[in-house]
Amino acid sequence: MLRINLSRLRKDLEDLGEIGKTAEGGVWRSSLSEADMEARRWYIQRMTEAGLQHWIDAAGNIFARTGEGGPAVLAGSHIDSVPNGGRFDGALGVMAAFECIRTIQEQGVRTRLPIEAVAFTDEEGRFGGFIGSGAVAGTLPPEEVARRRDLRGLPLAEAMRNVGLDPARIPEARRDPKDLRAYVELHIEQGPVLESLGLPIGVVQGIIAGSRTWVTFHGRADHAGTTPMSMRKDALLGAAEFSLRAREMVLSEGSGTSVGTVGVLELKPGASNIVPESAFLTLDLRDISWEVLQRLLERTRSLAHEIAQKWGLEATVERMRVSEPAHMSPHIQAIVDEAARNLGLKTHWMNSGAGHDAQILAKVTEAGMIFVPSRQGRSHSPAEFTEWDQIENGANVLLHTLLRLAEG
Amino acid sequence: MLRINLSRLRKDLEDLGEIGKTAEGGVWRSSLSEADMEARRWYIQRMTEAGLQHWIDAAGNIFARTGEGGPAVLAGSHIDSVPNGGRFDGALGVMAAFECIRTIQEQGVRTRLPIEAVAFTDEEGRFGGFIGSGAVAGTLPPEEVARRRDLRGLPLAEAMRNVGLDPARIPEARRDPKDLRAYVELHIEQGPVLESLGLPIGVVQGIIAGSRTWVTFHGRADHAGTTPMSMRKDALLGAAEFSLRAREMVLSEGSGTSVGTVGVLELKPGASNIVPESAFLTLDLRDISWEVLQRLLERTRSLAHEIAQKWGLEATVERMRVSEPAHMSPHIQAIVDEAARNLGLKTHWMNSGAGHDAQILAKVTEAGMIFVPSRQGRSHSPAEFTEWDQIENGANVLLHTLLRLAEG
Repeated sequence: MLRINLSRLRKDLEDLGEIGKTAEGGVWRSSLSEADMEARRWYIQRMTEAGLQHWIDAAGNIFARTGEGGPAVLAGSHIDSVPNGGRFDGALGVMAAFECIRTIQEQGVRTRLPIEAVAFTDEEGRFGGFIGSGAVAGTLPPEEVARRRDLRGLPLAEAMRNVGLDPARIPEARRDPKDLRAYVELHIEQGPVLESLGLPIGVVQGIIAGSRTWVTFHGRADHAGTTPMSMRKDALLGAAEFSLRAREMVLSEGSGTSVGTVGVLELKPGASNIVPESAFLTLDLRDISWEVLQRLLERTRSLAHEIAQKWGLEATVERMRVSEPAHMSPHIQAIVDEAARNLGLKTHWMNSGAGHDAQILAKVTEAGMIFVPSRQGRSHSPAEFTEWDQIENGANVLLHTLLRLAEG
Repeated sequence: MLRINLSRLRKDLEDLGEIGKTAEGGVWRSSLSEADMEARRWYIQRMTEAGLQHWIDAAGNIFARTGEGGPAVLAGSHIDSVPNGGRFDGALGVMAAFECIRTIQEQGVRTRLPIEAVAFTDEEGRFGGFIGSGAVAGTLPPEEVARRRDLRGLPLAEAMRNVGLDPARIPEARRDPKDLRAYVELHIEQGPVLESLGLPIGVVQGIIAGSRTWVTFHGRADHAGTTPMSMRKDALLGAAEFSLRAREMVLSEGSGTSVGTVGVLELKPGASNIVPESAFLTLDLRDISWEVLQRLLERTRSLAHEIAQKWGLEATVERMRVSEPAHMSPHIQAIVDEAARNLGLKTHWMNSGAGHDAQILAKVTEAGMIFVPSRQGRSHSPAEFTEWDQIENGANVLLHTLLRLAEG
């Protein structure tokens, strides 16, 4: 049975991990940054050495291909990273796809449909994320391109022009859905589930819907020593109760796999001897069910107001961002599962709690994802790691999933 | 009868209120910050213009003096402020003391004992508070100086060196108790009592015991989308429950007038899509009874550990500062009361719910405090205000209290 070459794949991942490497041992390759451009040049050099057909589309996505005709089976991910992120997030999906088509080509395997490896521009969000996959799917309108900026205010269009790309030509990167057979993405789980279950392969069923809500409780600043407890309007009390009860809400009213996180909580004025006047917090709510998420979001609003009233406060609730869930193709889930079993690997069927390019491609073609375990569930951190034998397992499952899909 | 010059005092308070002024109309002059240093330069310029003898001691306290010999009658307060605090807290006591000795000098009044106006370093607590008064009283040992740091971790010693002060020389700021006759501090009440009674002058009998505790809950940073609720160690949940239960503890186990405040709560890493790894908070606990305060402090420690255990976290509890209740001199209380009556002003005898430099000076000399009403009890806020005729009343009571004490 055909197998990828782990030592070659490992060297690629290690070499790529040196580009944009941070003092803490992570990588910092924001999309279209100097480090990202160096990684792109390195990758193109690798494809040239491998004698693979390759090209860069109008959105800066990098493609390699084996086989002829169409429609094409796509596999990939991204090589940009979050600030001081890990060496595997995204990079694994691109390098493994590259390794798969390199293996197929060098072994002289003929597939009915062509297979392409793709590295998408800005998955991680320097310019809001999903630029490259959105361009390929045709879901990124020109007015959206014009709107996108990085945190320093640099427009996406300017960043593209700086590296020789013409933002006006982004629509040319769209691939007609008729020319796409499927999209498959191998990725680290970025969570602790596979490791805790001791299972090597995750079959992704869906990418959960996400939301971000800003809640502010407004009270009154008073002197901590001279204001009787009964005369206070302490904004923190509202925020504290909200943080606890938002968790209870997720557990009792969610789907069972719903997650809710208050990751930011800021007090004003924020002095030890002043009763807090306001407390700002962010609530990140996610669920695979769009209906459950909508219900939780509605409940969030009433919960905030109910708690504010209890403590004599005012609450403002702003829904900042909501993304719909994406469902992976049941057909591809079955193929991934079968490929894993043929390799003697047990699988766990699960949802992805993080966003991926696959959710964008799922709008126009059959999409699937394969997860491998993340050590201690760590990601977006220099501590991110996946054992090399698990990398090998994941890449071989990807290889046989692609071969099967390329049968037609 | 001698009177201070209200228009001059008012202009000083208004000018000082422009330094470190915030958008909301409050002031932000943390001790040894750029705004505090600007206020210090401004004050020294005012003393120079007034032709008053003045100096800065080894702790950065600023003194002005009228008269010769000793022991000295001290009057003062502080010009540092809490973040976005009021224009009167502290500033009134310094500017009124300055106005008193300016009045005494320009009217050619001879006092048997010298009178000094003092502005103490860090009353409000950027570095734990009472740095300047502790140095003068000789109650601030070098190991305490070495331990003090601000919320960002900047050591007091470094902050002092940055403005040209040598922390090793702080002991030189000590005044021999034999050289001190008394200390008197005019201050806004910072609470609602005098206003609600319609009385212009508070004669302070005691200052309640205060404490500041730092509590940190340590959990684990995880991805907000990929980490199931049951596998998290969310530091915020500990901090949120602690904030609510510390309040319940104060209400159910305190004296009835005990107060407790969580005024600072900071999350790390503090990103909306990352489960909080740590949550730092400050608990300010106060009571007039030393025994009650001790009991609450003991309970605080066990409460933090109990809550940490419940959520799978670790807790660290650091007692940063405890001040014993301070009793004001009965002799000075009588003098203040008499001075007020001679000016036709009714008095109310009361305790102070806030800490003041007077509690430190009370350890080494006779100390007294004079309160004037705070509008709506507001303080540590841009809303802090005292009517100008009440400012005038308080300053005149201070003037005649100082003159009487300077008789010997």
